[in-house]
Amino acid sequence: MFYHVKELQFNARVSKPDPRFARLLLEQFGGPNGELKAAMQYFVQSFSAKMPYPDKYDMLMDIATEEFSHLEIVGATIQMLLDGINGQLKDAADESPLMDLLSGKEKKEHMINDAMMNPQFFVLTGGGPRLTDSNGVPWSGAYVNANGDPTVDLRSNIAAESRAKIVYEYLLQFTDVPHVKETLKFLMTREIAHAQMFMAALETIQPNFPPGIKQGDPRYTNTYYNLSNGVDYRGPWNEGVSPALGETWQYIADPIQHVVETNGLSNVTPTGTDRTVESAEEAGTKLGKMRSEEIKNAVPEGELQWSTYSSTNNTSNNTTS
Amino acid sequence: MFYHVKELQFNARVSKPDPRFARLLLEQFGGPNGELKAAMQYFVQSFSAKMPYPDKYDMLMDIATEEFSHLEIVGATIQMLLDGINGQLKDAADESPLMDLLSGKEKKEHMINDAMMNPQFFVLTGGGPRLTDSNGVPWSGAYVNANGDPTVDLRSNIAAESRAKIVYEYLLQFTDVPHVKETLKFLMTREIAHAQMFMAALETIQPNFPPGIKQGDPRYTNTYYNLSNGVDYRGPWNEGVSPALGETWQYIADPIQHVVETNGLSNVTPTGTDRTVESAEEAGTKLGKMRSEEIKNAVPEGELQWSTYSSTNNTSNNTTS
Amino acid sequence: MFYHVKELQFNARVSKPDPRFARLLLEQFGGPNGELKAAMQYFVQSFSAKMPYPDKYDMLMDIATEEFSHLEIVGATIQMLLDGINGQLKDAADESPLMDLLSGKEKKEHMINDAMMNPQFFVLTGGGPRLTDSNGVPWSGAYVNANGDPTVDLRSNIAAESRAKIVYEYLLQFTDVPHVKETLKFLMTREIAHAQMFMAALETIQPNFPPGIKQGDPRYTNTYYNLSNGVDYRGPWNEGVSPALGETWQYIADPIQHVVETNGLSNVTPTGTDRTVESAEEAGTKLGKMRSEEIKNAVPEGELQWSTYSSTNNTSNNTTS
Amino acid sequence: MFYHVKELQFNARVSKPDPRFARLLLEQFGGPNGELKAAMQYFVQSFSAKMPYPDKYDMLMDIATEEFSHLEIVGATIQMLLDGINGQLKDAADESPLMDLLSGKEKKEHMINDAMMNPQFFVLTGGGPRLTDSNGVPWSGAYVNANGDPTVDLRSNIAAESRAKIVYEYLLQFTDVPHVKETLKFLMTREIAHAQMFMAALETIQPNFPPGIKQGDPRYTNTYYNLSNGVDYRGPWNEGVSPALGETWQYIADPIQHVVETNGLSNVTPTGTDRTVESAEEAGTKLGKMRSEEIKNAVPEGELQWSTYSSTNNTSNNTTS
Amino acid sequence: MFYHVKELQFNARVSKPDPRFARLLLEQFGGPNGELKAAMQYFVQSFSAKMPYPDKYDMLMDIATEEFSHLEIVGATIQMLLDGINGQLKDAADESPLMDLLSGKEKKEHMINDAMMNPQFFVLTGGGPRLTDSNGVPWSGAYVNANGDPTVDLRSNIAAESRAKIVYEYLLQFTDVPHVKETLKFLMTREIAHAQMFMAALETIQPNFPPGIKQGDPRYTNTYYNLSNGVDYRGPWNEGVSPALGETWQYIADPIQHVVETNGLSNVTPTGTDRTVESAEEAGTKLGKMRSEEIKNAVPEGELQWSTYSSTNNTSNNTTS
Amino acid sequence: MFYHVKELQFNARVSKPDPRFARLLLEQFGGPNGELKAAMQYFVQSFSAKMPYPDKYDMLMDIATEEFSHLEIVGATIQMLLDGINGQLKDAADESPLMDLLSGKEKKEHMINDAMMNPQFFVLTGGGPRLTDSNGVPWSGAYVNANGDPTVDLRSNIAAESRAKIVYEYLLQFTDVPHVKETLKFLMTREIAHAQMFMAALETIQPNFPPGIKQGDPRYTNTYYNLSNGVDYRGPWNEGVSPALGETWQYIADPIQHVVETNGLSNVTPTGTDRTVESAEEAGTKLGKMRSEEIKNAVPEGELQWSTYSSTNNTSNNTTS
Repeated sequence: MFYHVKELQFNARVSKPDPRFARLLLEQFGGPNGELKAAMQYFVQSFSAKMPYPDKYDMLMDIATEEFSHLEIVGATIQMLLDGINGQLKDAADESPLMDLLSGKEKKEHMINDAMMNPQFFVLTGGGPRLTDSNGVPWSGAYVNANGDPTVDLRSNIAAESRAKIVYEYLLQFTDVPHVKETLKFLMTREIAHAQMFMAALETIQPNFPPGIKQGDPRYTNTYYNLSNGVDYRGPWNEGVSPALGETWQYIADPIQHVVETNGLSNVTPTGTDRTVESAEEAGTKLGKMRSEEIKNAVPEGELQWSTYSSTNNTSNNTTS
Repeated sequence: MFYHVKELQFNARVSKPDPRFARLLLEQFGGPNGELKAAMQYFVQSFSAKMPYPDKYDMLMDIATEEFSHLEIVGATIQMLLDGINGQLKDAADESPLMDLLSGKEKKEHMINDAMMNPQFFVLTGGGPRLTDSNGVPWSGAYVNANGDPTVDLRSNIAAESRAKIVYEYLLQFTDVPHVKETLKFLMTREIAHAQMFMAALETIQPNFPPGIKQGDPRYTNTYYNLSNGVDYRGPWNEGVSPALGETWQYIADPIQHVVETNGLSNVTPTGTDRTVESAEEAGTKLGKMRSEEIKNAVPEGELQWSTYSSTNNTSNNTTS
Repeated sequence: MFYHVKELQFNARVSKPDPRFARLLLEQFGGPNGELKAAMQYFVQSFSAKMPYPDKYDMLMDIATEEFSHLEIVGATIQMLLDGINGQLKDAADESPLMDLLSGKEKKEHMINDAMMNPQFFVLTGGGPRLTDSNGVPWSGAYVNANGDPTVDLRSNIAAESRAKIVYEYLLQFTDVPHVKETLKFLMTREIAHAQMFMAALETIQPNFPPGIKQGDPRYTNTYYNLSNGVDYRGPWNEGVSPALGETWQYIADPIQHVVETNGLSNVTPTGTDRTVESAEEAGTKLGKMRSEEIKNAVPEGELQWSTYSSTNNTSNNTTS
Repeated sequence: MFYHVKELQFNARVSKPDPRFARLLLEQFGGPNGELKAAMQYFVQSFSAKMPYPDKYDMLMDIATEEFSHLEIVGATIQMLLDGINGQLKDAADESPLMDLLSGKEKKEHMINDAMMNPQFFVLTGGGPRLTDSNGVPWSGAYVNANGDPTVDLRSNIAAESRAKIVYEYLLQFTDVPHVKETLKFLMTREIAHAQMFMAALETIQPNFPPGIKQGDPRYTNTYYNLSNGVDYRGPWNEGVSPALGETWQYIADPIQHVVETNGLSNVTPTGTDRTVESAEEAGTKLGKMRSEEIKNAVPEGELQWSTYSSTNNTSNNTTS
Repeated sequence: MFYHVKELQFNARVSKPDPRFARLLLEQFGGPNGELKAAMQYFVQSFSAKMPYPDKYDMLMDIATEEFSHLEIVGATIQMLLDGINGQLKDAADESPLMDLLSGKEKKEHMINDAMMNPQFFVLTGGGPRLTDSNGVPWSGAYVNANGDPTVDLRSNIAAESRAKIVYEYLLQFTDVPHVKETLKFLMTREIAHAQMFMAALETIQPNFPPGIKQGDPRYTNTYYNLSNGVDYRGPWNEGVSPALGETWQYIADPIQHVVETNGLSNVTPTGTDRTVESAEEAGTKLGKMRSEEIKNAVPEGELQWSTYSSTNNTSNNTTS
Repeated sequence: MFYHVKELQFNARVSKPDPRFARLLLEQFGGPNGELKAAMQYFVQSFSAKMPYPDKYDMLMDIATEEFSHLEIVGATIQMLLDGINGQLKDAADESPLMDLLSGKEKKEHMINDAMMNPQFFVLTGGGPRLTDSNGVPWSGAYVNANGDPTVDLRSNIAAESRAKIVYEYLLQFTDVPHVKETLKFLMTREIAHAQMFMAALETIQPNFPPGIKQGDPRYTNTYYNLSNGVDYRGPWNEGVSPALGETWQYIADPIQHVVETNGLSNVTPTGTDRTVESAEEAGTKLGKMRSEEIKNAVPEGELQWSTYSSTNNTSNNTTS
């Protein structure tokens, strides 16, 4: 169950209206890397985490709830940046309503110009935010990644926080209002904090690479196909040892010839690795049994009940570590 | 700021897995009339309501927060209806993983059939909900209606609650699990309660018709154009007196002839009404001044701060009526 | 079957090109509250209305057809506001084609600036409308609400007309061309007229609340959960008597405690109402039988034929009231 | 202005409910090649056609109006194929409503299975069509192609009619109800008729290739780059003479070497053609002047009015050829 | 398998940054008629073409691969037009980073204005292209038409090339940088070349009209319904002989009366044609057998293998004509 | 420039048609974690990488090109799984075309059932793949993440590969055809290989945390807000030292009280860290200068040319490490 307190998590303030920056800021309200995306991603992931991994569930819900609170901060800031528009629009019937705020022909032009920046602030929302990105494209449920596996989901979250961070970094360069900058810096910093939480949580799951259960086929885990011809570069991504599995990279300089000679990669044998096709299968089977067991033990059979209700649970924080 | 308590608002339970009903229930998780739509609609509307109408803001936030809590109930129910899938998917490496749950060829077939109902439960989410409707179409920010005017927004909300209600009514006919029915009935009933809250709030705003500020042109407010030929019907929507403005309906039996004769409706005069073009303009101007004043008085000029922070606010509920 | 006459329903005129206002006006051509949305909503609703409710069908089709005619007016106005662009674009091969219209470097700049307002007028449609909103987001079938129940659909329509009305009201503030203002006022006024038609039609269906068939569970129809903490307000939406069902509002000041104490709202009993769980079920059953009977009587079994053809039907208007 | 007569253009009938075929048929109601797409494509194209090309405008409007009439036929057929569902859903309150239609546990199962085919027929639309394709993806304004040039638009239309035709051809294989087959054959045949109308209209515009105004650069109009290696084929698309411009195809067997040797195709000269870079530019300039003149002459300057109103226009068909 | 060489197919150059034109050019990167659409359309069509029509498969893959190469040219040009933005954005921490590039308050304003043109270049992509159209609407898989029949697909391709051509023609009018114009002309010309390839390929399939297999019902192939009343026009699309089937057009001046009199077009007989309902069915059956046979002979039964691997195939071009 | 060789990178084979698994496999053709998403993500990222980071550009292009080659493998497999459908659909005119393949009423039923699984295989694509996910939702350009910063983009890629890996892992459980399993295992393994390449590349950039330039505000980088009440858990994500910045986690047990007491987090001071607000700003400024310099040095000013053309470049692989 959610609960709302009317105070914002951060003391957001705005010195003067700025519909142009309000448009930019929509990117973090209803955009693909914005606060709603983050909130919904962790919220949706939490459902499959709850029973097998109650500690991860707790973390996901703490952060999801914070992201909802950030969504509120962003929305409030946009609303304050659009301040005055709603009142002006109401004074509609005399047919020169925008004159009060502005004055004179040029200023009306200016107002219309600003309207053009995102007309929907003026002709659709009446001076408030809308769940779109900065170009007016509606938020989509497809932004949310939740795949039912913490080694995947936590990586999705680290990446999501990285993208959210860089968008705030970019946004900071398009306003010079100190109050707004403070709010943006707070929000940007929290993405850094969250990213570290997800990194720490990922480390508590071992093994966590490859993500999921099944192991890679050793014939193909360490080959690099040089498919873009011209000036080629070598680096730790195609020479030396692969970072997670510790196999020796096999650099295929002419992949087309290689494919033809190996009958479409059918006739290759593992090279540069101790793993075999069999050992890889076996390792996957073993891990699968372990994880599957874990989950089945955590999730009861038969009738399920999501919550238990006792006043103890609610009135104090029970901490387990 | 939002806060989360781990107990669901309603004690949702499930007796046995049912991936097919889980698919149907997605309609209320990520569908156009579902809980996220409702939550986000009232949440987004609340931004422009806060300063001029703090009472409506309080109501919108109370209901928005309840809808988030309902979204959690729906997600939890879907998760429980998909119970067992995640564990089975983890037991992946032996290449007959679904056999435990089922047993024998037919049952695997059956599992695959169920997978086909919504493959994304199996191959994308690993046995959890996704922010889509029952056909897998992602939730869209375009579902949210917020137009910066309470006489419009509250009507949008009454309609939204009506649609959400009927979808729960339909859903109730596709499960016979008592626990799930109880949950659905609770959720359906709350839509009825919310609808009444919005109706009551709309009544506190006078005048509330037409929505917004500007009055209709009396030459066109009470004409009915009979544009669909064949068996025609008369009823209070085209004869007698119009329900909100109390004008006499003018029934135009042959609209094409009428349009041609009036030079594209230019040469018509108000009939069946006391209002004139001038009086309508004047009424709009007057109302516009009033509403505009209200808002400007409520919204301070210059630097804006969304929240004030004092321990008093937080630790007790201050009620104003 | 539809039929088209080349005259517009309203005598739309434009004094001079204005690509910027043309962009804004797209909101009512291909936007979520625009004319296509309205036309398609009533058209789609009409299919399920036809057999049980031929009078509502007649009304829906009359209004749907009018909305198509309004879509044409909006498109024609956009086309005239973009006047000259198509001809200029054709004069393309000399590589300074925009010079005729404008003249000199600054004017070309100006043209490019205008192009930027909605580049698709220039590089995609060649100077005509496109089925998008004012930000270029394509119209979506998801805008259309049709749920197979007149008590729901008519409420959706009242809300839709309200939104369309306010968008025209806002748009009126961004042009000062008298002809365009006249057209917008006509279109805005028709939304007011239609809203009243739908209100009147809703009143002819009794009972119409709650929408649909099933009655609300009396344990939850009149409770208000105070989920947004801080300064709280009381009003007719949470104190006194609920507007449609006439029950006494129950204000739950601390919903979290209440949920825990009632085992997730399981252990509550109806308060402030005469209805019981049983009487509510019974009322729903009775209403369900009545409505279901109505529909089954109206819709023949076996082979169905949509239309009957007789010259009588067509050449005269047969009116039934 | 549009007008509606209640008779369908084609006498659509249905012998028995079939929710599965109803789902398939949605492809032509709200799908990318369906009737709404066709109707809206020609309707939107008509705006820019009206003033310079009144004959094409007349044709586009005739066909657009027919496509709206076909949309109605498809919707009516879907509604009839879903017959009985709405009535059943209304009989909701006794909690075994689907039993009437079916009877016994298995039949309820069967009903639920059918619901799964497109759950939205049951839980969203209450037994009516929705503006989606057969998978539930909402219709999109992006399906509509209108580019402000008849040599382009008419080709888009020929292609659109071809796609609509093949979809009806495919659909015909999934029903064996004679009445439905008749309706589908009528609709399929009309696509063939329309395709020929657009072909004939395209021929009346000369020159019509290349589409638009500007002529192709003769260095690149007749080269064929063999970019997919393996078994290569020669045919009239890469040997002999090009069909529209009559130039000799230049087959570049090794395009990578060719690109490097020509400094990224900068250093090539026209081969296999009489046209030169200069003559091509000149031809474009000339055509541009001609077309631009045509359009400017047809479209008046200054104040524009879309329609003129006179009873003569309306009461008789004035035909010009 | 694809292969990449780092040289662009065309030597694309840019003289100076121009974020505004970069925005326009997005139309051909991620827009509905852009290079990705073309590439993916031919690529997706190629799968069903491969086995029955290896020559068409070869052509589709040659052109698809060229379109990918064009997508790269467009992306590279956008990147160069945004040159300098990425470096500026990195210099973020001193909080006046955009001053270097510009200088002075007005120039910062100017930068922000440009950012407004497409804010996502600045706050989302950090100065690079994104897969959207010029308004920021993401590319959609729905742009791709592939219907499993070459007589349909090739027509879709001719239309697609026509639209792509006109968009380049329009774009050419919004830049005066010679290098950029050269690139656009090259790309525009290739659309003309490709259109001719598809036209030539369509001619090699006989019969190719109507597209697909089934023949039109002769009662409806040659009727023209005059559904748009007012000034009507006659031309080869509704008088004389139809262009593909050579039937005499039947002009129905009053279609409503006609529909009523023919009982919804049921009671009509073929006029102006030698074909009969029976001969049309027969012709379709015969063609169906022929085409079906062709495909079944080309596509082996049982186990399928997409490629055969032999060094001969790869190291030389085997040409078949 | 791209080049295509007709052999697939992997020798994909299929033993028998299976339209149901073809539907599932669409998830990796046109779904959010599929091959097109991966290919386009690295391709789009490569544009901004090319000039400052030619080694990363080379890697991105090598992998993007491999992903295009995987897209082809997936499409070819879907096509083979749908084998026979296209031929059957062509044999359309005798109106019982599906009988050959099947035989008898039940089998036709079965075919129609399969059609229902994804009707678009039958009525839209004629037996080929479409660019949608397994539910028919079209691929979207919004799936692609490219933010102009390698420390962000590489993390997006690690996450994308993780998701693609788990989807293949899930898919493997829904087919038992050995050939198809082999193909899926190859594709799954390559995601593991690519993930490691991106991990290795990320390590070569130092510092790479936080992503981008600006450093986090030390007042907020290491606080954990316990916003989800109930059973709480402690772990390395909220106790001990944060993994990337090495600061001591500050656990705020009651965040609402904390927010109120700190005036919306305004009055907090850095705790558990050596960094100060000033030192963090300074570090950001320094890093910004460094990175900005790097990029400006790599990207020439003035006229830009993407490629240089020399036969040397092309005919040999020049490797730099």
